[in-house]
Amino acid sequence: MRTQRQTVSIFLIILTFLWITPIVRALDPSPSQGKDPLPSWKNTTTKKSIIAFVEKVTKEGTPDYVLPAERIATFDNDGTLWAEQPLYFPWIFAIDRLKALAPGHPEWKDREPFASVLKGGPEKAVAAGYSGMNTIVMATHAGMTTEEFNQAVNDWIAVAKHPKTNRYYTEMVYQPMVEILAYLREKGFKTFIVSGGAADFMRPWVEKAYGIPAEQVVGSNFTMNFKIRNGKPALVFLPKWSFIDDGPGKPMGIHYYIGRRPVIAFGNSDGDREMLQWTQAGGGARLMVLVHHDDSAREWAYGANSKIGTFSDSLMTEAKKNGWVVISMKKDWKRIFAFEKAE
Amino acid sequence: MRTQRQTVSIFLIILTFLWITPIVRALDPSPSQGKDPLPSWKNTTTKKSIIAFVEKVTKEGTPDYVLPAERIATFDNDGTLWAEQPLYFPWIFAIDRLKALAPGHPEWKDREPFASVLKGGPEKAVAAGYSGMNTIVMATHAGMTTEEFNQAVNDWIAVAKHPKTNRYYTEMVYQPMVEILAYLREKGFKTFIVSGGAADFMRPWVEKAYGIPAEQVVGSNFTMNFKIRNGKPALVFLPKWSFIDDGPGKPMGIHYYIGRRPVIAFGNSDGDREMLQWTQAGGGARLMVLVHHDDSAREWAYGANSKIGTFSDSLMTEAKKNGWVVISMKKDWKRIFAFEKAE
Repeated sequence: MRTQRQTVSIFLIILTFLWITPIVRALDPSPSQGKDPLPSWKNTTTKKSIIAFVEKVTKEGTPDYVLPAERIATFDNDGTLWAEQPLYFPWIFAIDRLKALAPGHPEWKDREPFASVLKGGPEKAVAAGYSGMNTIVMATHAGMTTEEFNQAVNDWIAVAKHPKTNRYYTEMVYQPMVEILAYLREKGFKTFIVSGGAADFMRPWVEKAYGIPAEQVVGSNFTMNFKIRNGKPALVFLPKWSFIDDGPGKPMGIHYYIGRRPVIAFGNSDGDREMLQWTQAGGGARLMVLVHHDDSAREWAYGANSKIGTFSDSLMTEAKKNGWVVISMKKDWKRIFAFEKAE
Repeated sequence: MRTQRQTVSIFLIILTFLWITPIVRALDPSPSQGKDPLPSWKNTTTKKSIIAFVEKVTKEGTPDYVLPAERIATFDNDGTLWAEQPLYFPWIFAIDRLKALAPGHPEWKDREPFASVLKGGPEKAVAAGYSGMNTIVMATHAGMTTEEFNQAVNDWIAVAKHPKTNRYYTEMVYQPMVEILAYLREKGFKTFIVSGGAADFMRPWVEKAYGIPAEQVVGSNFTMNFKIRNGKPALVFLPKWSFIDDGPGKPMGIHYYIGRRPVIAFGNSDGDREMLQWTQAGGGARLMVLVHHDDSAREWAYGANSKIGTFSDSLMTEAKKNGWVVISMKKDWKRIFAFEKAE
């Protein structure tokens, strides 16, 4: 009896698979079956070269095939995954905290860089530069526990709006890049953020915005104290960076946090140069990409002379020399933000 | 014709699934179907409490349910996942390098701690302590690029053997812990190493030994220089720690690298105390576990008075007070290493 049932079931299984295979294929939404994985991208050389690269390294049996465990893709955040004008958004968060805390700090009224930044607009923060804004970041972030800071970021990201577009900052993410992230994950890549911003500023919201989990965020970190507060351990920020994930810090951050060399790296400014160099130096098939902000109508156009997200001429020269892909936001993207209509 | 084919196939699919379900169930190796996920564990309260915890937090609809994204489990390495006697294995690696490099460093013959450690046995290294061994680690690791160091670890781990058992170090891993790691991953946990050893020493071999990928290894890190060597960028170790992942460093490492609080943490010594405190302070259902080395016959018995892997009386008191699980290697494990027969 049992043997007969098994024989019948095995027969039915085989029979069914013969039928299921073509049905499943017809329903398969994977890009190899024709659906465009990057609908917000114009059908330019840029798009084609990115897709060709990804298809090449994920196709088994070819010389450029990359094992799934080695499929690491790293992305800068500010200027690469979301906008960074008129100021890096982490700086806007710091300035908003500065304003909120100012009543308890009357001394800031007469002390730079606090006084100018409190009184002036974004241009005063740009003028304060990395050094001045660093002083403000430390003054407004140090002393908080990791949990308090997490709450502060959550509170801010839920209500703060961009001064130009009046959109939430999480709406200021680049739709074409969100599509790239999803496409790479579908192709077995682990997607990581490797950004100069504080990891603690990014982790509360990046999973929802980009599908990148907290444990795949590499960023700058504060030194901390481990303290027992009300009988419970707490990690308290000190007014000093423990690690700055920018420039040569990016390959270091990749090595410290990921421990594998990326196969693909996306950036947009001089601070990403070493990450792309490090990626390419791994040898074999590697894809290095820079987002170029050249769309003054739909986003911003800036580059070599900008104090925010500097894309120097020497970076462009290096990109051309080394075969790095340079995305023109204007020419390569149908739309920039999800809230826009596609061209 | 097409409609008829579709009808037949749908009928066959339904029919087959009716048969497949009980067959698949019968073949299902998952523990919920009766197969023991921890065969090297004796059926003690320790094993039962660990399984009860994991089942509880992974069962949807219960108050203690933990979402898959939050299922983080952290493991110390030395003394928790593999042995650490007569010396921490990363120190044995450093001493082997010291001996290999000694011919080029005649000055080491007359300088401490080099002279004693070069001449003497493991007890001289224990006497040199953290400070002395740190000097040796820096003298033997600094100046290497990340790639050179990776190669050195790969070369060593492939041939070096433990002085007592004459087994490869990767055979000195605890089989019951390998089973815990696999069981947790099957239950949707991401397993991380959070260990005082250098991350660069662990990453080359932990994936094979434990199933933990390089990007889930948190360890101590060297400061580095980014240099262009022969036209290629390289990361070169400097003779100084950038981050020490031990004691209060462990919750920091968890925060920096993972950015989520563990639901489960395993350790074995005083250096794991803060990691377990930090885990428990997350509130809700959390599992804190300590491996106690009390098996002088099959492994080693040591604790409060050991200079390697100190398990102080105050740690034991804290464990009891806070409901941390303490594993007795002697009473809870059928076997310790895979090369042993189970009791």
